[in-house]
Amino acid sequence: MKRIGVLTGGGDCPGLNAVLRAIVKTADEHQIEVIGFRDGFRGVVLNHYLRLTPKEVVGILIKGGTILGSSNRDNPFHFRIEKDGETQYADLSDQAIRHLEQHELDCLIVIGGDGTLSCAHDFIKKGVKIIGVPKTIDNDLSGTDLTFGFMTAIDTATDAIEKLHTTAESHHRIMVLEVMGRNAGWIALQAGIAGGADVVLIPEIPFCLDQVVQKIMERKNRGRHFSIIVVAEGARPQDGEQVVKRIVEGSPEPVRLGGIGGKVASDLEAMTGFETRVTVLGHLQRGGKPSAFDRILASRYGVAAVQLALEGKFGMMTSLQGWEIGAVPIAEVVKELKTVPPEGELVKTARSIGISFGV
Amino acid sequence: MKRIGVLTGGGDCPGLNAVLRAIVKTADEHQIEVIGFRDGFRGVVLNHYLRLTPKEVVGILIKGGTILGSSNRDNPFHFRIEKDGETQYADLSDQAIRHLEQHELDCLIVIGGDGTLSCAHDFIKKGVKIIGVPKTIDNDLSGTDLTFGFMTAIDTATDAIEKLHTTAESHHRIMVLEVMGRNAGWIALQAGIAGGADVVLIPEIPFCLDQVVQKIMERKNRGRHFSIIVVAEGARPQDGEQVVKRIVEGSPEPVRLGGIGGKVASDLEAMTGFETRVTVLGHLQRGGKPSAFDRILASRYGVAAVQLALEGKFGMMTSLQGWEIGAVPIAEVVKELKTVPPEGELVKTARSIGISFGV
Amino acid sequence: MKRIGVLTGGGDCPGLNAVLRAIVKTADEHQIEVIGFRDGFRGVVLNHYLRLTPKEVVGILIKGGTILGSSNRDNPFHFRIEKDGETQYADLSDQAIRHLEQHELDCLIVIGGDGTLSCAHDFIKKGVKIIGVPKTIDNDLSGTDLTFGFMTAIDTATDAIEKLHTTAESHHRIMVLEVMGRNAGWIALQAGIAGGADVVLIPEIPFCLDQVVQKIMERKNRGRHFSIIVVAEGARPQDGEQVVKRIVEGSPEPVRLGGIGGKVASDLEAMTGFETRVTVLGHLQRGGKPSAFDRILASRYGVAAVQLALEGKFGMMTSLQGWEIGAVPIAEVVKELKTVPPEGELVKTARSIGISFGV
Amino acid sequence: MKRIGVLTGGGDCPGLNAVLRAIVKTADEHQIEVIGFRDGFRGVVLNHYLRLTPKEVVGILIKGGTILGSSNRDNPFHFRIEKDGETQYADLSDQAIRHLEQHELDCLIVIGGDGTLSCAHDFIKKGVKIIGVPKTIDNDLSGTDLTFGFMTAIDTATDAIEKLHTTAESHHRIMVLEVMGRNAGWIALQAGIAGGADVVLIPEIPFCLDQVVQKIMERKNRGRHFSIIVVAEGARPQDGEQVVKRIVEGSPEPVRLGGIGGKVASDLEAMTGFETRVTVLGHLQRGGKPSAFDRILASRYGVAAVQLALEGKFGMMTSLQGWEIGAVPIAEVVKELKTVPPEGELVKTARSIGISFGV
Repeated sequence: MKRIGVLTGGGDCPGLNAVLRAIVKTADEHQIEVIGFRDGFRGVVLNHYLRLTPKEVVGILIKGGTILGSSNRDNPFHFRIEKDGETQYADLSDQAIRHLEQHELDCLIVIGGDGTLSCAHDFIKKGVKIIGVPKTIDNDLSGTDLTFGFMTAIDTATDAIEKLHTTAESHHRIMVLEVMGRNAGWIALQAGIAGGADVVLIPEIPFCLDQVVQKIMERKNRGRHFSIIVVAEGARPQDGEQVVKRIVEGSPEPVRLGGIGGKVASDLEAMTGFETRVTVLGHLQRGGKPSAFDRILASRYGVAAVQLALEGKFGMMTSLQGWEIGAVPIAEVVKELKTVPPEGELVKTARSIGISFGV
Repeated sequence: MKRIGVLTGGGDCPGLNAVLRAIVKTADEHQIEVIGFRDGFRGVVLNHYLRLTPKEVVGILIKGGTILGSSNRDNPFHFRIEKDGETQYADLSDQAIRHLEQHELDCLIVIGGDGTLSCAHDFIKKGVKIIGVPKTIDNDLSGTDLTFGFMTAIDTATDAIEKLHTTAESHHRIMVLEVMGRNAGWIALQAGIAGGADVVLIPEIPFCLDQVVQKIMERKNRGRHFSIIVVAEGARPQDGEQVVKRIVEGSPEPVRLGGIGGKVASDLEAMTGFETRVTVLGHLQRGGKPSAFDRILASRYGVAAVQLALEGKFGMMTSLQGWEIGAVPIAEVVKELKTVPPEGELVKTARSIGISFGV
Repeated sequence: MKRIGVLTGGGDCPGLNAVLRAIVKTADEHQIEVIGFRDGFRGVVLNHYLRLTPKEVVGILIKGGTILGSSNRDNPFHFRIEKDGETQYADLSDQAIRHLEQHELDCLIVIGGDGTLSCAHDFIKKGVKIIGVPKTIDNDLSGTDLTFGFMTAIDTATDAIEKLHTTAESHHRIMVLEVMGRNAGWIALQAGIAGGADVVLIPEIPFCLDQVVQKIMERKNRGRHFSIIVVAEGARPQDGEQVVKRIVEGSPEPVRLGGIGGKVASDLEAMTGFETRVTVLGHLQRGGKPSAFDRILASRYGVAAVQLALEGKFGMMTSLQGWEIGAVPIAEVVKELKTVPPEGELVKTARSIGISFGV
Repeated sequence: MKRIGVLTGGGDCPGLNAVLRAIVKTADEHQIEVIGFRDGFRGVVLNHYLRLTPKEVVGILIKGGTILGSSNRDNPFHFRIEKDGETQYADLSDQAIRHLEQHELDCLIVIGGDGTLSCAHDFIKKGVKIIGVPKTIDNDLSGTDLTFGFMTAIDTATDAIEKLHTTAESHHRIMVLEVMGRNAGWIALQAGIAGGADVVLIPEIPFCLDQVVQKIMERKNRGRHFSIIVVAEGARPQDGEQVVKRIVEGSPEPVRLGGIGGKVASDLEAMTGFETRVTVLGHLQRGGKPSAFDRILASRYGVAAVQLALEGKFGMMTSLQGWEIGAVPIAEVVKELKTVPPEGELVKTARSIGISFGV
């Protein structure tokens, strides 16, 4: 093995640089050259790249983001081209493959989430040798117990809950925190447990606002005149609920930022009489330096990816299985998302320490 | 001196508990009893209170919020009463004074910002012996160089800028951060300097979006394909500017959360072609545990407040003057807010290190 | 089940309070009373205890230490008694059992490490119904993949490495950091990976100082005029090595700081000519508030412990198995410590990213 | 003005890079070239330097240490030379001046503490045009109210106190923390206030151990079975005290850790019967990224230094006076250190909130 390529795709995530550093250092150990493509698959299509040597990765272990840049729109099979003021789409996958061939790459390591790996899967079907590394803040990727960046996001969300707690208690308010998680409630659930939330609303357990109100009132009756509600951005009310309508149709004011979080907040204020405030954590969750945990996991993934390449296990993705590093076929990974089991141990633990899921 | 009262009013602020702890410990040293009123002046009106002894303040030095609770609506001179489903307002200041007299208080220490101290001022005019302690996240209170809580808010806002920086750089985006500061841009300015922002928009310097765009494009030309914009919530465009109109009248979507920050973001995206995201820091700025700096300042204020009471200097507020603790008349403090001098050294420093104010 | 007891034994550890909170809340859900014994088994011997209701555990989720107090000396089977100025030891285990019976406890939950659980095991052999919860900063307890507190210690140690890094680089120095780990190098290894250390010395891999010197000189030759060495307190040189002698017998200067860390530092200074400094992290590793990760794990353990009690699975310890909560016999746990596999994936990963183990 | 030089001398300090960044950006604004000498005055003697353009300072605002390197031994007037295995000293100041002239520098900005500025002062007397920027972790430099790096050190020390607090309380121990401050107790005093220490021992107030013991016993009598003692490394017992002798001559056990901190700890254990532990914070205090406060102060100093140069105010040092940036003659600064006034407001505040100084 003489030369490998690497790219980072999709939303940025703390730990991407730690993966790159581990790949470059491990490759260097085996006298393998590394080509880094800029801005995800976009860089392969346009042949934007740089040589990555141990020098380029000095000091990046603790840095958030990715030195390669990323892109979460540009699929080579459906590549956006602005031409004469119009947006067109074209399949430039062959052009991308040509670039890979020009570089005489033995393998391409693709660090990305569901979207990026699906794209990688399409290239695999066209014969490209690819190794995957799982990346998603939301931790909703199948085939691995954990993705790096997730625990850093939990730290940030938990810290936010703590900050909101002091205001909630001092002012006798309901504080709503909207966190990431369009399809899976992992961040909301785990940060809710760590931060001592009172209610956690996640996509996997459609909620009923009346139940949330009941929880808030139970707390009030016990002299706890405030509540913390953590809402995953993908949380949604139960079908057919009257409350649903109110949320969907007529919240008092138009809401842009803070989708479901803002809606829940305005309804709860109306329903309980408590002053209610919403905070949308947004991009703060994916920024900043990775936690120690994520730097370790990311480093392990990077080393393992090169190892898989050396073993010729193309089409596989590194994976955390328990506390061991293993590998799974990318083809399996992209089939479905990993969501929170509504009756699993983690949800039961949350319930036992007093967290309501609004049901 | 046998007995003093204390209350915390207005929005909560890291360091309130440290002030309370210092007051109670200092009073105890002088065998003075302390009565703590709940929820600001509301507690005086309703005679809601608790005895504060050294035991009550154990462990609160590092806790955010206020163990007394606060309220930012209930002015005794214009007290809101819900009656028969209607909201009425009444002057209950005499009832409040009666409660102070019943407790045989030698003095009332009022910890609060502009609103709370204005209310304190009205009580002073009616003969109540009051000592003030300045409190405002925004640092816009006159008569003191600094208020506790402000540096903790700077820490939080600076940390947010750092987090946004990694995403901005990885994705070649403009990231807009809206911070507190309705009337004064102290947080935006200082966090902007500390976090390495590219543009800072503050109420004291009405901005022109074209200038912001120019800064972003200058950066782009130097190969810096991202920018960080920090916007105080009270920032506003220059009068008469065409851009102003667009902001005020027709931003593409209705915006609720993220007032000016969201507007600036949507306009910048349209004007520059850069993907743009807005984050509203909101309540995260006033929550959480106070920084070391704020615990020290708050402790000094608490000790000084009791000292002022012992010296009979009623009507005065503790104040930081340079690095010394002094005192100023509350009557002076409530006259006007302290805003950022548009041509002061801090703004000039910001300019010298490359920050644009959009003018 | 009507009433259970709980105690925390051994060195304190971030997350103990989170376990207690989860136990009390879960017990309360099942109408089970909880008796908390003070200062580990000492409180059982002396019948020092308090009732633990949900009220007692409010706000302790994020607090380090243990509200019950702990003790790492007082084994009821060999209880230290000061009498007439002399220290005697007596077997007071029957007295302890009598107290447990007086409280009519259905079960005793013992949260502790190797020492405390060994003691619990002796009580189990005498017929006491005990559920164990694993606790050790060092993560060297068998039967569980992870113990709470460990990841918080990693965070602290990693943060220390980062701090030392800036000084090392600015002053062209070798910085030695001594961390916990008398028998196992988990903290040194994982913090070393997360912090970007150059050398990691652990008990499981006896080191040769000449190899450490070689690593430092290789770095120097590549223009890296500084190195970071992380040393577990239980690290030791290879037998028979000449260098060993020098460490043991006659380091050039009297060693002021630390055990093995200080010795390694003075030898390295003499052998390389680099200015060398040592920092002993000590108790900072076990203090402070638990990380989000540890609060979640601790909460899961607490809930699971009550669950095991309800299921009558006495003699078992809660355990993390992969990412699932399981249970193992305490009898198995106390047989041997869990140490770092010298040829395991984690060590190999560390090597691949450039860490030397001094061999 | 066409070209200026800059160097960083003495122990590293969070904020040095922020000063450099501000100097380079401000100089660039005025089309002034910047030459950075490596490793303090050593780089001037050996003519080791690099060009500093805005490109070199990208991203360094938040980085601890100094990209120029530092040295705290090499005084050009007494320069150490290793020759034929022997150490000699020579006055190479003229050689240094020659290098400055070769670069045609209009001015040299010297960022350093007492030692470095004394050296700068000697160059000033030989006609070199120098502007000073104050730097010391200890904050003991005259002529300025504050030096950057100090508040970051306070943050680190305060955090350490908090961590020790949980162990102290859980185990009923005395925890001793030794912090920096050879000549001045600023760090111990301010971190002690911020962290809620019980005893603070500083160089300016020679202590009596019996008084420390009394404080610990008073706490014990109030049910507080632990104490936190913060000791500045330069703290010393009162002359003639019997206790002094015992500290100096014969502590009961060989002291393993630290200087005065370890001695105080072993004596206190013997005198009180409480288990006692010592932690030496050491280099952790000067490492890591600067706090927001220090980045702002450092940026202001950097801008102001170039401003002084442009105004031709050579021989002056930038200075924080209250909250304004001013300038003082370096000749004045190096005359004496700034120590804690033993009867000043800060010490009195500490006393009022219950801190004993051991007198």
